[in-house]
Amino acid sequence: MHQVRFRDPAGSVRRGEWHDDVDETHRISFGGETYAVDEVDVLPPAEPTKIVCVGRNYAKHAAERNEDVPDRPLLFLKPPNALAAHGDTVTLPAGKERVEWEAELAVVVGEQCRNVTEDEAMDYVAGVTCMNDISNRDDQAREQNWVRGKAFDNSAPLGPVLATPDEVPDDASVELRVNGETKQSSSIDAFIFSIPELIAEITEYVTLEPGDVISTGTPEGVGPLSDGDRVEVEVEGVGVLEHDVRVP
Amino acid sequence: MHQVRFRDPAGSVRRGEWHDDVDETHRISFGGETYAVDEVDVLPPAEPTKIVCVGRNYAKHAAERNEDVPDRPLLFLKPPNALAAHGDTVTLPAGKERVEWEAELAVVVGEQCRNVTEDEAMDYVAGVTCMNDISNRDDQAREQNWVRGKAFDNSAPLGPVLATPDEVPDDASVELRVNGETKQSSSIDAFIFSIPELIAEITEYVTLEPGDVISTGTPEGVGPLSDGDRVEVEVEGVGVLEHDVRVP
Repeated sequence: MHQVRFRDPAGSVRRGEWHDDVDETHRISFGGETYAVDEVDVLPPAEPTKIVCVGRNYAKHAAERNEDVPDRPLLFLKPPNALAAHGDTVTLPAGKERVEWEAELAVVVGEQCRNVTEDEAMDYVAGVTCMNDISNRDDQAREQNWVRGKAFDNSAPLGPVLATPDEVPDDASVELRVNGETKQSSSIDAFIFSIPELIAEITEYVTLEPGDVISTGTPEGVGPLSDGDRVEVEVEGVGVLEHDVRVP
Repeated sequence: MHQVRFRDPAGSVRRGEWHDDVDETHRISFGGETYAVDEVDVLPPAEPTKIVCVGRNYAKHAAERNEDVPDRPLLFLKPPNALAAHGDTVTLPAGKERVEWEAELAVVVGEQCRNVTEDEAMDYVAGVTCMNDISNRDDQAREQNWVRGKAFDNSAPLGPVLATPDEVPDDASVELRVNGETKQSSSIDAFIFSIPELIAEITEYVTLEPGDVISTGTPEGVGPLSDGDRVEVEVEGVGVLEHDVRVP
């Protein structure tokens, strides 16, 4: 089942079911009511207290950034202000030369946990979704910790749905399209660190809360966003996260 | 007034008033009831969605770390899992050579804000408190973004009270004692970046929420924590944050 969090026409926040129709439109149902997607506000499928992101988790992306493959997960943080939803127009920070897309598979935590072993890690996963880890390279290159570079408002479009892990194949494709043109296309079988390895490493230091997000890194093919771009992030077994881009 | 957030003997979370008695004990009052501090659980005085920390905001601390003074605020993040409260025993990450104290004045945000000017910045401040920015140097030295180094559980003891900004002098002292011995002693008039400058810089990128914390950096005198240490962080006009340390 694909779960979607949304605000219904009366303004109430609901968790409903997302249905894919044969004509590539979608419907959302909850409590006996069914809505077209454009009748409601789709919200991020989780309400994280933090987003733990992973850098350079695909070897070819490390190469395109002229960086070595890390010997342990390279972690960084996006706070809740970074969230944006399916269908949103994302406003980039003003006056930057290069703000880039990064398509990622994101994991949503289901239960509070700490010191989790790799063997039990998947027990704490509520589901899987799509994320764009939007990255302001101008500032990322100038700062030790990527706050201006990675934690700015709207830098984490997330969604549209939460898929259960068994719906996502072990070699699921991760793709990104800009204005219909494919820019990133890889498979999660190219991960350097697996999802259980990431959960074990993070929870050695940090308690994860229900709704927290772990974003698993981006494959090769990153590039700059422009005003008016329409971005699609597709994770096989999950669906397509769409958002527009505005450069002020 | 010094406001304190606490769990009363019935388990209810309240925001009461903190009273300093002449014999250096403290009482907490709410709704006509008065408690001794050890009758209740003191909680962190804020419930942040994020803690935005500032590195090297005192020149002498930059020097002791062999670092230059920054030309703009050096920012990093602690998520809510980092919080600990007055009176808590803080458990440090296991197996580390050097985990250090860093006494700081912390600002709590009162209202949601973005793109705030320096002139209006103090309008968005709810109050001031004490923080210990506990730092795991083993990992901080090995990672780009300080997640294992700075964002681990309990790495941000905060409290005990929220003082209003007018209760804190412009040259307020910031002190830290370990087992009664003074280790850090400086004044916030040595800030490189003022509180309004920090708020203006952060909100150029990030929306701040009510309860969010900005921690303003530590003065010189950092050093390693040991099992059984009793730490006191004192900010003039606020009071003394106390916590114990456990090394597993």
